[in-house]
Amino acid sequence: MHLTAEQAAEIDAARAVRAETRRPTVPALEDLLFTPLPVLDHGFVRVIDYMGDDAAIVQAARVSYGRGTKRVSEDAGLIRYLMRHRHSTPFEMCEIKYHVKLPIFVARQWIRHRTANVNEYSARYSILDREFYLPAPEHLAAQSAVNRQGRGAVLEGAEAARVLDLLRSDATRTYDHYIEMLNEDAAGAPQDPARQGLARELARMNLTLNTYTQWYWKIDLHNLLHFLSLRADPHAQFEIRAYAEAMLETVRAWVPAAYQAFLDYRLGAATLSAPMLAAVRRMLGGEAVTAESSGMSRREWTELSAVLGRGG
Amino acid sequence: MHLTAEQAAEIDAARAVRAETRRPTVPALEDLLFTPLPVLDHGFVRVIDYMGDDAAIVQAARVSYGRGTKRVSEDAGLIRYLMRHRHSTPFEMCEIKYHVKLPIFVARQWIRHRTANVNEYSARYSILDREFYLPAPEHLAAQSAVNRQGRGAVLEGAEAARVLDLLRSDATRTYDHYIEMLNEDAAGAPQDPARQGLARELARMNLTLNTYTQWYWKIDLHNLLHFLSLRADPHAQFEIRAYAEAMLETVRAWVPAAYQAFLDYRLGAATLSAPMLAAVRRMLGGEAVTAESSGMSRREWTELSAVLGRGG
Amino acid sequence: MHLTAEQAAEIDAARAVRAETRRPTVPALEDLLFTPLPVLDHGFVRVIDYMGDDAAIVQAARVSYGRGTKRVSEDAGLIRYLMRHRHSTPFEMCEIKYHVKLPIFVARQWIRHRTANVNEYSARYSILDREFYLPAPEHLAAQSAVNRQGRGAVLEGAEAARVLDLLRSDATRTYDHYIEMLNEDAAGAPQDPARQGLARELARMNLTLNTYTQWYWKIDLHNLLHFLSLRADPHAQFEIRAYAEAMLETVRAWVPAAYQAFLDYRLGAATLSAPMLAAVRRMLGGEAVTAESSGMSRREWTELSAVLGRGG
Amino acid sequence: MHLTAEQAAEIDAARAVRAETRRPTVPALEDLLFTPLPVLDHGFVRVIDYMGDDAAIVQAARVSYGRGTKRVSEDAGLIRYLMRHRHSTPFEMCEIKYHVKLPIFVARQWIRHRTANVNEYSARYSILDREFYLPAPEHLAAQSAVNRQGRGAVLEGAEAARVLDLLRSDATRTYDHYIEMLNEDAAGAPQDPARQGLARELARMNLTLNTYTQWYWKIDLHNLLHFLSLRADPHAQFEIRAYAEAMLETVRAWVPAAYQAFLDYRLGAATLSAPMLAAVRRMLGGEAVTAESSGMSRREWTELSAVLGRGG
Repeated sequence: MHLTAEQAAEIDAARAVRAETRRPTVPALEDLLFTPLPVLDHGFVRVIDYMGDDAAIVQAARVSYGRGTKRVSEDAGLIRYLMRHRHSTPFEMCEIKYHVKLPIFVARQWIRHRTANVNEYSARYSILDREFYLPAPEHLAAQSAVNRQGRGAVLEGAEAARVLDLLRSDATRTYDHYIEMLNEDAAGAPQDPARQGLARELARMNLTLNTYTQWYWKIDLHNLLHFLSLRADPHAQFEIRAYAEAMLETVRAWVPAAYQAFLDYRLGAATLSAPMLAAVRRMLGGEAVTAESSGMSRREWTELSAVLGRGG
Repeated sequence: MHLTAEQAAEIDAARAVRAETRRPTVPALEDLLFTPLPVLDHGFVRVIDYMGDDAAIVQAARVSYGRGTKRVSEDAGLIRYLMRHRHSTPFEMCEIKYHVKLPIFVARQWIRHRTANVNEYSARYSILDREFYLPAPEHLAAQSAVNRQGRGAVLEGAEAARVLDLLRSDATRTYDHYIEMLNEDAAGAPQDPARQGLARELARMNLTLNTYTQWYWKIDLHNLLHFLSLRADPHAQFEIRAYAEAMLETVRAWVPAAYQAFLDYRLGAATLSAPMLAAVRRMLGGEAVTAESSGMSRREWTELSAVLGRGG
Repeated sequence: MHLTAEQAAEIDAARAVRAETRRPTVPALEDLLFTPLPVLDHGFVRVIDYMGDDAAIVQAARVSYGRGTKRVSEDAGLIRYLMRHRHSTPFEMCEIKYHVKLPIFVARQWIRHRTANVNEYSARYSILDREFYLPAPEHLAAQSAVNRQGRGAVLEGAEAARVLDLLRSDATRTYDHYIEMLNEDAAGAPQDPARQGLARELARMNLTLNTYTQWYWKIDLHNLLHFLSLRADPHAQFEIRAYAEAMLETVRAWVPAAYQAFLDYRLGAATLSAPMLAAVRRMLGGEAVTAESSGMSRREWTELSAVLGRGG
Repeated sequence: MHLTAEQAAEIDAARAVRAETRRPTVPALEDLLFTPLPVLDHGFVRVIDYMGDDAAIVQAARVSYGRGTKRVSEDAGLIRYLMRHRHSTPFEMCEIKYHVKLPIFVARQWIRHRTANVNEYSARYSILDREFYLPAPEHLAAQSAVNRQGRGAVLEGAEAARVLDLLRSDATRTYDHYIEMLNEDAAGAPQDPARQGLARELARMNLTLNTYTQWYWKIDLHNLLHFLSLRADPHAQFEIRAYAEAMLETVRAWVPAAYQAFLDYRLGAATLSAPMLAAVRRMLGGEAVTAESSGMSRREWTELSAVLGRGG
């Protein structure tokens, strides 16, 4: 992650400000405020603002006149109860705003989550930076042979070198042509006065999908946890998972009780279908249930075995 | 509006807390924080929390690393431009949370706005207060003769007295029966040990629609302004308009530039249809356009005359 | 459920129409179209329109040019896979529209689900029918002693009679006063020419929460199944569950493969938390795990025991 | 627009099916069903399914038991009233589903509208087609000198030729490298058995933003009209406007009364701010208002002049 001197100075200036407030305040998140957490080779996530804390979840669940909290342990117990029973509205009472720099192909996965507010940097209006995502060697994975939507072993040797070379040279060339078509220098003056320069809204189409973009993204805690349960999951693509993991750290600093409940009742939980439950009950009754006798599809049986930590 | 001593103490305790924050802070709204603004006879609106300020709108529009603001006048100009051209996403970057006490029939109009987060006091779980909305004499209006969805003149004399008496006595009687069916005193003990007491989730059905309920309601600035443009409008029912007007005051304290742009480009603006625009152009060309020669329906012509401040 | 002769004739007329279409069509749901399914004492649910079928889920998942379906068994397998892995967007491609008549207190629970389209009968504009929900004797339940949000045993004898009498007489009296205040007869003419009549938008506040209202409600299949998973659940209040169960029947007729997957992977499924999974693994390893040695709260242990079909 | 023989056959097969239905049916839209309407060089929009018609808007507004319609002229009048007064919920009762093929940079603008259901072709799972958007010569516009977000004159001669050559050769080269990195032929077999092939979810990042993608997109009529009011607007980028215009034709076939009301009260309408209205009133009073005496900003004055069809 590289910041220009001007960007670093803007961030420092924002961090230097202090004001007095009556609002719920979370010192551990204040410490992180505005600081970019690096993700991938040029990306970052940084918290720009937040509303509420663990107590605000409790306060909303009780519709109270004051802070609505009792002892910390009672509050944590209520938060765990709400999480376990999918009472989602109290978690919606907390809100967080991020500034994210991310490759366009990641942005396209991310934006499928519709319950958030987004302001993206406009390539109709402005010129994108010369920054592209190039996977680190250990993430340059082959297509999975068993899962059409997954990754297999890491590429090695000549094939890895060739792939990295193609990704780098294509991104570089298309970006250079983007700038050439725009015919603008950094100050917006024409590079070649004899040319008009292609409209920005058109020139951008020459960029590759690993070009970085950035946006402001604001979401409530319930929907953020839903996003993280999908995107911090091992089935998510590595690149978006890297962002999810950085955001999980900000959730831990912000609402520690909700974070722990989320680990126990979502990330670390598993949903057992009716056929799976029937099989587990038979097993607990002492029966030696097999894939065949379970009545499940082979695929579902494999999933159950994984959940129970047994060979399939 | 009446608060119990305990509620007043909880509010005072919340107001007494001060913390240091790096977040954007608005002193004029901090002054209002937690304090109930009275609405109708027993209702209120109070701001519980907020995120962002005028500068946060500008910051998101520019996707900046720092606060993103320039001179105050430039920021206000950009906010006016965004409002005029319906660029709504930067306004979504501000968020506010209210605690509202309101009659159930008002709550039912309010909840039609779906783009907000709500936690309502649960009458399945708890017992509602003995408080009902009774219109002030000057708001006890007759049915409009010309508008099936409007109010006419104020009721007077015996009819007004009879209506108020019916509203008061019916609300009182049904509430008393609600408590009798519950068979609970304030501490939750049975009033009559020989009875079981009807389930709360059933007993509540005996209450009238002017009974007060309360909720936490959280919304972003764009959707709040949309709500207010509909509910602070003269066509809105008086009772919900009273809430909208109290909330407008909180918006004025919170984001003064967005508030002024909202007055100029929404509340004080009018949309002219294609036929209306054609008529105005003819008028400005010196033609004496009439209802008949305008080609509009009588209703639309009347609406245009009102917009232009002319007799229809 | 009572329909006027005019309403019954309107429904018959709608059912009599036949048209030719290229759209996916489901004969089993066509059979139900427009017919009210009775719910509670005066309510109903009826399907007004629908879009899509089981094959449309498959078609969207494959983004196909044609119907996108293969063999029925393959399609059902894909639908089960999508349901199990919470791939929700293909289910959003089916849509259904209902006309529902329901008590206002049920409508207030229902409307918390925000991802639907609603048009409610307007009591600002029109006069509500003289119909109230009165629980059948077997549903007149006492407050649960163990669960503040639940029902206990059924009321009996004098207490039951008293409760029913109060509910009936209060609803009747407040409705009669509503009509008196309106001062309108069925044709809209004043009952007493000497009175003006209270505005409809005000008079309605005298009605009790068991008065019936009605609305058009339109929702996609994914969000409908989410609604049903909450409202067909044993923890839901009986009255809204009665509606959910009627709607489940329409889902069964409409999208049988999705319906079966929903039973297996949602309604009949259970989510085990990280601590619950750890306990199950220990049990399967032959260990005699107890509430104490499980490390769970007593409440969570009881929930696990229920899932596993064991005494807690 | 090019379809493979297989795709054309799938579409023909879908169009050949006829079924009988009780649902509202619109013959003019049935005629269009499944047929791709060409947009840009390789894109299309085609209607896959729909729910409701003009009468369904009226039916929902009246919450009726039957079709709810009266004379066609009365229905159209009510629809015009609802549109003029922004009563949006009855329009939400109609729903339409499209299959769209579009360049990725257009898809990124489009997806900002969050109130729709989307299933996009997955480049994690499948291989994208070798099709890129190349602007027609008359749409190869220069950057606007006056509007940072707009287009100026069309590029000509050597500059135009150079731009087109760059766009074509870069898209072609990056696509060829994408296929090379995947190391798959059309049947999914390795082109070079010595290589593993890069994972699809990674290889896609080498594609340029003018590569075509496709999706199923489903939306209700209210939100569709909102989308079209923004995207059929002259300020929208030409490429997305081309899609909006094709969709407008499908709306005209589907709900002709709502379409006409939309033209009159949205697309052809203009919102006048409070300062604009004040100026128009002064003009109608015979005053010669100038930019200076209007009190508006120069920019707003220019906008008013455009609305009134006068030189600024």
